[in-house]
Amino acid sequence: MTHALLAPLRWDDVTLHVLDQRWLPQQTRWIACERMLDAVDTIATMAVRGAPAIGITGAFALALARREGIDLLTAEQTIKNARPTAVHLAWAVDAALTAVPDGDPARLLEFAQALQAEDARLNQQMAAHGAALLPAGRAVLTHCNTGALATGGWGTALGVIRTAHAQGQITEVIVDETRPWLQGARLTAWELAEEGIPHRLIADGAAAWAMRQLRPSWVIVGADRIAANGDTANKIGTFSLAVLARSLGVKMMVVAPLATIDWDLADGSGIPIEERSASELTSMRGQPLAPAQTPAWNPVFDVTPAHLIDALVTEAGVVLQPDARKLEAWRLLQG
Amino acid sequence: MTHALLAPLRWDDVTLHVLDQRWLPQQTRWIACERMLDAVDTIATMAVRGAPAIGITGAFALALARREGIDLLTAEQTIKNARPTAVHLAWAVDAALTAVPDGDPARLLEFAQALQAEDARLNQQMAAHGAALLPAGRAVLTHCNTGALATGGWGTALGVIRTAHAQGQITEVIVDETRPWLQGARLTAWELAEEGIPHRLIADGAAAWAMRQLRPSWVIVGADRIAANGDTANKIGTFSLAVLARSLGVKMMVVAPLATIDWDLADGSGIPIEERSASELTSMRGQPLAPAQTPAWNPVFDVTPAHLIDALVTEAGVVLQPDARKLEAWRLLQG
Repeated sequence: MTHALLAPLRWDDVTLHVLDQRWLPQQTRWIACERMLDAVDTIATMAVRGAPAIGITGAFALALARREGIDLLTAEQTIKNARPTAVHLAWAVDAALTAVPDGDPARLLEFAQALQAEDARLNQQMAAHGAALLPAGRAVLTHCNTGALATGGWGTALGVIRTAHAQGQITEVIVDETRPWLQGARLTAWELAEEGIPHRLIADGAAAWAMRQLRPSWVIVGADRIAANGDTANKIGTFSLAVLARSLGVKMMVVAPLATIDWDLADGSGIPIEERSASELTSMRGQPLAPAQTPAWNPVFDVTPAHLIDALVTEAGVVLQPDARKLEAWRLLQG
Repeated sequence: MTHALLAPLRWDDVTLHVLDQRWLPQQTRWIACERMLDAVDTIATMAVRGAPAIGITGAFALALARREGIDLLTAEQTIKNARPTAVHLAWAVDAALTAVPDGDPARLLEFAQALQAEDARLNQQMAAHGAALLPAGRAVLTHCNTGALATGGWGTALGVIRTAHAQGQITEVIVDETRPWLQGARLTAWELAEEGIPHRLIADGAAAWAMRQLRPSWVIVGADRIAANGDTANKIGTFSLAVLARSLGVKMMVVAPLATIDWDLADGSGIPIEERSASELTSMRGQPLAPAQTPAWNPVFDVTPAHLIDALVTEAGVVLQPDARKLEAWRLLQG
């Protein structure tokens, strides 16, 4: 299994090893986490990223917390606060607490490991559902990294692309470099090269021209939080792609596990949007890209309204043109 | 005059000094051009960029060529081939040849200097026309660099912004960083800081979210070549902005001298689009940003169809919703 090579997390029975994705692809550094705060730091500093991978790391962090005797409430709050937008993190911690209400460290560890395996399994289901929507012989466009590195394995949006490529459906993947963190250039291009899937990197601003000249059939992205009406928070740049796709005759697919849906949020206006430091835009690895003191506006996520989404793909299947009514029906069917 | 400090070119009676904008804002390096090929190299390597500044450099290059005894036809072809998309370069060389048909070096030098002064004057006219379209108390969004560094002085799109700021009309400038060359981060942020104009840098992918959250009234950009129907080639990313602006209730302004209009091109489909090396996306100043060998699609320009442009501003005035009929009438009036 290729994704075993690319897993963002490894557990060796004593220590959680988190791949430090900030240094990829030039360096493969692992961060050894013995204590809860080690693991929380990997989330807060974006050494690990991608909603599912963050959730799994959070579940491991809870187990580590209990092993060092931290009380459940402190652990829960500390872990959930590491990244405010990713609902998957809070969901994973809540799921762990529901499964192991007494906070037994050994059982929490088992839960975290099972969560990772389960996520990889859900990815495969989503991939099959999403790939079934793609026509043969066309390019697709993707943003950020939603592959094995972002999940328990295989990937969400990139999982759909892997499966579609394996089925001979796509000609190439157009990869947004995804500023400011360049997850497309650093991580997605790397995963696609490892898999031998044809791809070309573009500047984020080139997306509209790429839609016109390279004719992708679908834009395929992941999600960090989805409101009950289908409004979707995802990596900054996703909303731009959705507007462009709708205007230029390209379809828009969001691929995410059901746990990404926040049923308590009626729509996207309630989703908190994390803003990060200007330095992420004004410098790169210590090299200045702009004059010192240049102010920047650096939201990490944006919210794509549901009416711009042509298909929402989860492990349970596909909802075309998602809205509150359809998602509520889906929720009822899932029980 | 502030723009004297920021001029991209200086002539000292013997040598043309070209500011090497690739190193700004960290380093202020000047390239001394004694011979035609020195000046042609500054255009081809993008040490000097911006359609008007390229045209002025081309006029100086012609004078240098004649001083070293190069025949007119060879000089003309060599200079025009330095950048294929910028019609302003060919226009400036043709204008010089028309004004000085015998190729006298001293008179060609006078012509180049007059062209630079004239461009600065046209910029001021455009700035006044464009600023008159802006409402008070709103932000504007711009792309790439169209300021003093890109022109004979003051700027085209950035000239409109300077004048509007001086008139108290705008609250802040939202600056696209403009990958892959980061002209927004490196050059526009620098010019705006020098002028004390409030601004914030954004990732190019954040433009749609910025339109929704920061509510700019207009997107204001320059142009490298405009077809007779108003279709406009400009820095990659402009077409994305035009589509987003139309969808999100923001207006789109193109600011360029009349010489940017290529009356021989019926529409934008005939505009040659320069594609540059993948390395501009996969590395930065020698540091890798993506795996080695990552393929990229790196067009330098895109073409915005005229129907997405709300106002075309030249030194002659404003054309709202430009089309072939209106531009033809304008051409006749300019006679």
